[in-house]
Amino acid sequence: MMPRSVLSRCAPCMLRPLEVPFRYLFGPGPSNVPPRILAAGGRPIIGHMHSEMFGIMNDIKKGIQYAFQTSNNMTLAMSGSGHTAMECAVFNIVEPGESVLVAINGIWGERVAEIAERMGAKVHTLFKTPGGHFTNAEIEQALAKYKPVLFFLTHGESSAGLVHPMDGVGDICHKYNCLLLVDSVASLGAAPLLMDQQNIDILYTGSQKALNAPPGTAPVSFSERACHKMFNRKTKPVSYLLDMTHLSNYWGNDGKPERIYHHTGPVSGFFALRESLAILAEMGLENSWSHHTEIAEYLWKGLEDLGLKLFIKDKDLRLPSVTTIAIPEGYDWKELLAYIMKHHRIEFTGGLGPSVGMVSKSLSRRHDNAAFNYMAV
Amino acid sequence: MMPRSVLSRCAPCMLRPLEVPFRYLFGPGPSNVPPRILAAGGRPIIGHMHSEMFGIMNDIKKGIQYAFQTSNNMTLAMSGSGHTAMECAVFNIVEPGESVLVAINGIWGERVAEIAERMGAKVHTLFKTPGGHFTNAEIEQALAKYKPVLFFLTHGESSAGLVHPMDGVGDICHKYNCLLLVDSVASLGAAPLLMDQQNIDILYTGSQKALNAPPGTAPVSFSERACHKMFNRKTKPVSYLLDMTHLSNYWGNDGKPERIYHHTGPVSGFFALRESLAILAEMGLENSWSHHTEIAEYLWKGLEDLGLKLFIKDKDLRLPSVTTIAIPEGYDWKELLAYIMKHHRIEFTGGLGPSVGMVSKSLSRRHDNAAFNYMAV
Repeated sequence: MMPRSVLSRCAPCMLRPLEVPFRYLFGPGPSNVPPRILAAGGRPIIGHMHSEMFGIMNDIKKGIQYAFQTSNNMTLAMSGSGHTAMECAVFNIVEPGESVLVAINGIWGERVAEIAERMGAKVHTLFKTPGGHFTNAEIEQALAKYKPVLFFLTHGESSAGLVHPMDGVGDICHKYNCLLLVDSVASLGAAPLLMDQQNIDILYTGSQKALNAPPGTAPVSFSERACHKMFNRKTKPVSYLLDMTHLSNYWGNDGKPERIYHHTGPVSGFFALRESLAILAEMGLENSWSHHTEIAEYLWKGLEDLGLKLFIKDKDLRLPSVTTIAIPEGYDWKELLAYIMKHHRIEFTGGLGPSVGMVSKSLSRRHDNAAFNYMAV
Repeated sequence: MMPRSVLSRCAPCMLRPLEVPFRYLFGPGPSNVPPRILAAGGRPIIGHMHSEMFGIMNDIKKGIQYAFQTSNNMTLAMSGSGHTAMECAVFNIVEPGESVLVAINGIWGERVAEIAERMGAKVHTLFKTPGGHFTNAEIEQALAKYKPVLFFLTHGESSAGLVHPMDGVGDICHKYNCLLLVDSVASLGAAPLLMDQQNIDILYTGSQKALNAPPGTAPVSFSERACHKMFNRKTKPVSYLLDMTHLSNYWGNDGKPERIYHHTGPVSGFFALRESLAILAEMGLENSWSHHTEIAEYLWKGLEDLGLKLFIKDKDLRLPSVTTIAIPEGYDWKELLAYIMKHHRIEFTGGLGPSVGMVSKSLSRRHDNAAFNYMAV
């Protein structure tokens, strides 16, 4: 052993107790976590390869199938945030040199385009300024032109507060032999989305938004069509950690009798995710959707009564979980948000990526304290 | 909204409460998590970009600097398990076409070789059967031959129960203008390791072993030499999620005044990691090392008194945190482990990768129940 004298000491900050202030998390996420989910995440852990853990993972799979409204066998949770699911989908579906079409109307499309470029895809983009959406005709035209193997669309564009129309998009993609990848991180559980009926091939979300679990896990599901593409590749996906061949075995989705150690999943995070999916199952998806809509409409009315303007004009295109307010002229959004945080412990946030300086965001969620949920910026 | 009739129902398993049995986790990891760390991880969360969260991340950085015995500014925790840190290190340090040397004497070297191959590196290997280790002369010969930009070595090879000698390895690497990457997932906090003194360029560990936190976060640190290489690349790392340019900003390590949203870190996981590093700081690294050694020696004696043979003959090469027992002839290791789990709720495990069928593992940890810790397979 090394002599004591050679060791450097720890900085004194680590001898102070952990301090965590209470916050009303009304930004676009993470959300406040209800005590029941916190308690589940704080339970003594078991091994990541114990049979009871596999049982819990099977439950999670069923919970995701319900939340996504899919019967896909290839349904699981990523050991990471929504970005992990985003990279996993692109890395597994696309091979270097293949063509990808990305709809960019906010930050999430920008991210997917960046991820696809890095792994060597030919990236084509459809572009709208924040708040804009794409018509099926625009999408079809681009699919015909670029012949991509994958089309990415954000269902809940939280950076603009937009919920994107999904009807018909999957059918158009399949007409052009293209897979449809949808990001529902900000919308899942808050706005209606039916993976199988809407012909979505790959769908992912995050644990920390309408599901109200801590960040760190990300439900994802792949259609049979998507599985056919990703399990018949010529090249291995660039990431070993995100290789669906291994992840599908870890989640018992590959039909093999034995599960082989791949990585150590976030056991506590899976406990919390299971609890959040159980709450959604108990409440029912329709009730969760209608609850979000009711609260959002109440919030919108209150904001407009105060003379504020909502960033998304068309009610049907407003994301029920994240409301965006156009920043009134002459006001500094950073000052407003800092004031609300300092005096009311409430988090609202500014725009993200292309919408910075354009909007301020407030999240209406099912476990919120209503008294605060309806406050305006 | 979709009509209720079109929705499929949730499987009934999700309407049952979460059930988690109690286990003595004496396998190679994850470890049992002490109540103090569970409580930290179960606290109400705050936003991943709140200033108090950045304060907690700064504390974590100090805690890792102490645990690693480094003054590296580029010290942080990954949002993922040890494998995430492994991929992060390879993806950021190595560019496609560059030469990498991997020491394989168990499963971890195999994994790094696989990761490096996938991202397009020229991979060379040094090989020993499980339990074997590499002399500095062997390492130097290979460095001279292959001229790699990176050499990977496992400090705590948990699949064999070996702690690898580290003295001089860093100096040899630097003589050949090569960076030294070390995996200390199974050894950090249990066996002496001094990142700066031993000239290690990139060091990572996991939260769920001797640190006793739940899995899902992974401390990692980069020397200035490693930073120089990774921040002067010609190509972008293949993963956006693991790009150190973004992660160093998220952790406040890049000297820039503003932190820009990259991904949502596992807030609860960071609370738990901070608590586990605080416990290590309070206890002192030397005490943690000597405690592990004392318990391991007691365990080794007890096992040998029972007539069992330890897999690593040389005491100095035995990993204090993971003891490997040579499976006695005529016994089925799977049956033995199943019996112990069923009747005593104790987890021991078999070998991993190349050591499957050769060893059975038991972890001696600082928070273990001593009465169980000393039981033999």
